[in-house]
Amino acid sequence: MSAFSSPWIRCVALTPPNLKDNTADADRLVAALKKELGADAVDLDLDLLKQLPAILRRCDYRVRCSLFRDRGRWVLTGIDGGDDPRPVAGLAVDLGTTRVVLLLIDLGSGRTLAEHTFDNPQVAVGPDVLARIHHADSPGGLHELNHLIIGGLNRAVGDLCGSAGIGPQDICTVSVAGNTAMTHLFLGLEPRWIIREPYIPVVNRPGVLKAAELGIDVNPFARVLVFPNIGSYFGGDLIAGILFSKLHQRKDPAILVDVGTNAEVVLGNRDWLIGCAGAAGPALEGGVTRMGMLAGPGVVDRVAVDPATRTFDIHTIEEKAPKGICGSGVIDLAAQLFLRGMIDIRGKLVAAACGDRLKVVDGMRHLVVVPAEQSATGKDLTMSQADLDSLIRSKAAMYTILETLTMTVGVSLSQIGTFYVAGTFGCFINPRSAIAIGMLPDLPLARYVPIGNSSLQGAALALTSESASDEIDRIRDRITYFELNVNQDFMNRFSAAKFLPHTDVGRFPSVARLTV
Amino acid sequence: MSAFSSPWIRCVALTPPNLKDNTADADRLVAALKKELGADAVDLDLDLLKQLPAILRRCDYRVRCSLFRDRGRWVLTGIDGGDDPRPVAGLAVDLGTTRVVLLLIDLGSGRTLAEHTFDNPQVAVGPDVLARIHHADSPGGLHELNHLIIGGLNRAVGDLCGSAGIGPQDICTVSVAGNTAMTHLFLGLEPRWIIREPYIPVVNRPGVLKAAELGIDVNPFARVLVFPNIGSYFGGDLIAGILFSKLHQRKDPAILVDVGTNAEVVLGNRDWLIGCAGAAGPALEGGVTRMGMLAGPGVVDRVAVDPATRTFDIHTIEEKAPKGICGSGVIDLAAQLFLRGMIDIRGKLVAAACGDRLKVVDGMRHLVVVPAEQSATGKDLTMSQADLDSLIRSKAAMYTILETLTMTVGVSLSQIGTFYVAGTFGCFINPRSAIAIGMLPDLPLARYVPIGNSSLQGAALALTSESASDEIDRIRDRITYFELNVNQDFMNRFSAAKFLPHTDVGRFPSVARLTV
Repeated sequence: MSAFSSPWIRCVALTPPNLKDNTADADRLVAALKKELGADAVDLDLDLLKQLPAILRRCDYRVRCSLFRDRGRWVLTGIDGGDDPRPVAGLAVDLGTTRVVLLLIDLGSGRTLAEHTFDNPQVAVGPDVLARIHHADSPGGLHELNHLIIGGLNRAVGDLCGSAGIGPQDICTVSVAGNTAMTHLFLGLEPRWIIREPYIPVVNRPGVLKAAELGIDVNPFARVLVFPNIGSYFGGDLIAGILFSKLHQRKDPAILVDVGTNAEVVLGNRDWLIGCAGAAGPALEGGVTRMGMLAGPGVVDRVAVDPATRTFDIHTIEEKAPKGICGSGVIDLAAQLFLRGMIDIRGKLVAAACGDRLKVVDGMRHLVVVPAEQSATGKDLTMSQADLDSLIRSKAAMYTILETLTMTVGVSLSQIGTFYVAGTFGCFINPRSAIAIGMLPDLPLARYVPIGNSSLQGAALALTSESASDEIDRIRDRITYFELNVNQDFMNRFSAAKFLPHTDVGRFPSVARLTV
Repeated sequence: MSAFSSPWIRCVALTPPNLKDNTADADRLVAALKKELGADAVDLDLDLLKQLPAILRRCDYRVRCSLFRDRGRWVLTGIDGGDDPRPVAGLAVDLGTTRVVLLLIDLGSGRTLAEHTFDNPQVAVGPDVLARIHHADSPGGLHELNHLIIGGLNRAVGDLCGSAGIGPQDICTVSVAGNTAMTHLFLGLEPRWIIREPYIPVVNRPGVLKAAELGIDVNPFARVLVFPNIGSYFGGDLIAGILFSKLHQRKDPAILVDVGTNAEVVLGNRDWLIGCAGAAGPALEGGVTRMGMLAGPGVVDRVAVDPATRTFDIHTIEEKAPKGICGSGVIDLAAQLFLRGMIDIRGKLVAAACGDRLKVVDGMRHLVVVPAEQSATGKDLTMSQADLDSLIRSKAAMYTILETLTMTVGVSLSQIGTFYVAGTFGCFINPRSAIAIGMLPDLPLARYVPIGNSSLQGAALALTSESASDEIDRIRDRITYFELNVNQDFMNRFSAAKFLPHTDVGRFPSVARLTV
C-alpha cells in the first residue's frame, strides 16, 4: 500500500437525521466536510443538490466525497457510497500547440492509471499560434478552434478511460497547463489581442471552472483548474514547470529551461523569479523539435556514433524498429554528428565524413539516420540540412536567451547551481549533448537535472497536492517577466552562438577537448 | 435626487493597457474592482469573459459594473459603458404558496420601478404544500411543478419589464423569499422528505445561484439570492420578514407575527430569536385568508358597521366597485360583526341581528357583505358560516401559538414592547380588529406595527443593502426553532381561544368594554 493520502477524497459518516436534529441533507453534509477539512465553506452544485437526498439515503449517510479547492472555497465534485470500488480519477493535461499529453491519475492512491498523447487537432487550421490566432479572427473561427481542441480532448478521455477500465464520469478533477494562446482557445476566449501591441490576454488567472461549462465530457460536477499565465508569451505551461521543478522553493538560484517549440527560461529561487520566452523576433522562429516526434515505441531517443567507424548506434523506445526521432534524439544526433566531424562548426553536413549516409533529395542534402530497410516505415529516416539549420538557430536562441537573462540579473551562468532541463515532448534531453552543440552552457554535468515534460507533471501535481493551487498563484504573482528586446546586442550574441558549440570556443572547454 | 447609493453598481475607469503594463483585460478589471470594493476576490463568468475584450475596447476602458456579493466573494453580474442610460434592475420575489409577488427595483436609485402579482400556477396541481409534495413524488411531477413556477415567473418578468420600459437583460440580481417547500420546488429539489418524519429539507442554505441555471429569463449573468430556511416549517419568507422588521437588532424583546396561510411567529431581540410556525396538526389547517384575495383595485380592505343602524361602510382599494375582500378586510369584518352582535362568541351568525343580510345557500348560512347590485361582479359578495368557522380556528391557532411561545421562554405577552404584524397578502391588518376577535393579545395599540408583506420587503432589502446577505445568514443561524407540540395542553389552550375574543374575557378588557 502506498503511503499517499489524497487531500481530495474524504469518507464521512453523517449522523442520520432525527427529530432532534433536522438539519437539511446538504447542510448536514457540508458541516461534516467543513469539520473534516477544516474549511470555511464547501460548495455544492445545484444539480448535485438535486441528487443528494437519494444518494444519502441509499448510502445510509456514509459517503465518499471527492472535493477540490478553489482558492479559499472547497467544492464537492462527486459523492457516492463509502465502499464504492470505482476509483476517483483526475486528469492532467499538457495542452501543447503541437501535441497534447494527458495523464489519468487515481486520486485515491496518486498512481498513474494511463497516459495518452494526441496531435493538437488545431494543426489542421494552422501549424502555429500565429496562424491560429489569425484564423480565430475569421467568422466562426474561434468556435471552430475551440471545438477542435475540446473534441480532441473528449476523444482522448474516451481512449484513456477505455485503457484504464474506468468511465469518464469517474474523472472528478482536471488540470490544464498550456501556453497563453492555447489556453485561450481551450476556453473559447478571443486570442486577438495576444499578438497585437501591447499584447494583452483576455485573462491571466482563469482559475477553476466547471468541466460541463467547458464542454469536457467527464463527471458533470468536475472542476477544471486552468493554470494562470503572466502574459501573452509566458503561459501556464511554464508555471506548471516551475511548480514541478520546485525552483521557487530553492535557496540558491537555479534555472529551468524548457526546450519545446520555443526557448523558455526561468531563473530564480525562493526570493525572486524572472522569466522570459523566446517567441519574440524572427531569430527564434522554427523550433528545436520541429522534426522531433513524440516519445513512443520505435522513436529514436538516443544516438551514439562510433568515433572510429562512424557506425550509428541507435536506441529506440521499447527497442522497436525506428519510425521517427524525438527532441532528445535530435539533440543527441546533432551532438554526435558534430563530435564525429560529420557536420562542421556551422552545422553544415560534411560530405567526406558522411559518406554513403549523405543523399540529395530535391536539391537538399539529407543525412540518412536509419536506412529504409531498417526503419519501421520502409523509408529512410533522415535529417535534412534545413532541419539542422533550424536546430542551429534554435540552440543559438536558447543560449543567447540564457546569456541575456543571467547578464540582466547580474548572475553568471557558472553561478547557477542547478539547471532543470524540461522537454515538453516527453523525452529526457541528454545535457551532455545539449552542451556539445552549445545549447546549454558548459557546466559540470551534475548540475543538470532532466525533468521531462514538466508542464504535464506540474499539472499532475495540481491534482494530487492540496497546496498546489495556492502555490500556483504565488508563483504567478512572483514572476517578473523579462521582455526580450531583440536589439543589435542580442543579434550580435545570437550570431556568435550560431556556431558549434560557439564562436568563443573557450566557453566550452569540455567540448573543445572532445573535438580536438 | 435620492441620497441612496447602490453598493452593487460601480463605475470604474481602467488605465488602458500599454507595453509597460500588459495585465490581461479580466485581471485589470478585477484589480480595479477589488480596490473600489475593498474586496478579496471578484469572480467573472466564463461567458462574460468571452465578451470582455470587445466591451472594454468599445467603452474605452470606462465601464459601469453591476455586482453582487456571495458571502465573501463578489461576482460581476453585468458590465456596460459608464454612460449607459439603461437602469440596472433587481427583482425581489415573495414566493407564496398561493400568490407570488414581485417588485422590480432600480438598483441605482433604490426606487421601485414596478410591482406585479400572480397566482402561483402550481395551484392547478394542488392547492396547498401537502398536495404539491405528493404530486412531486409522481413521475415527472417535480419537473412539472418546477416548470410551472419558473414559467409563471418568466411571464411575470415580461409583464414587469413591459410596464417599467426595461428589458429582462437589465435585471442583474434577483432575491427570492418563500417557504421551504415552495423554495424547493422553485429550485427543482426533491421536497419528499419535508413532510416525512423527521422532516428534512434538501438544503437549508441554498445561497446564491445563477439565474441561467434556474431557467429565469433575466440577464444571463444575474445571480439569485435564495433566502435560507431553518427547517421544513420555517422558511425563507420568515427570515426575510425578520430582516425587514429589524427584530433581530432590537434591545427589547419583540414579536413578528405573519398572518398568511399559516400562523407564523418569531419572538426575540438582538440576543436571541425563537420561532415557530403553525403548520403542525389539524387544528391549524385552513387559513385566516382562505377567502381573502389579494390587495388590488376594488378589493375590500376596511369595513365598519354602524353600531346603531348596522349599515356597512365598505372601503375598497382605489375606491372601485367591490369585487372581493382581502385578509385585513376579513379580520376587520369579523371584528365588526362581533362587536355589533351579528356573530356570537362562537363566531356563529346571529339571524336576528343580520336581518336581510343573512342568506342560506345550499343549506349554508351566508352573510351578504356587498349585495349583487353594488358589487363589481354582479353577484353577492358574501362570507359563509364555514369561512367564519375557519377564521375562528385560525385566529385561535395564532393566539395559542403566541401564548405557548411566550410561556416557553418565560416572557408574558404584556412584556412585549412591539408587535410587528405582517400580512403576506399585501394588506395592512388593523390591529384593533385583530384584538377584537382575540387573534392578537389586548395590548396598547401603539405597540402594534403593521408592516405589510414583510417577506417581499425583506427580499427587496437584500437587493439594495450590501450587508443584507451576511445579516440573513446571521439571522438564520441565531433562530431557535420551537417545535410546536400539539399535545393536550395545547389543545386545551386552543379550545379556550376559539371564542370571541376568548373564553377568558378578562384577557381582553378593551374588547369587553366595547361589547358590553
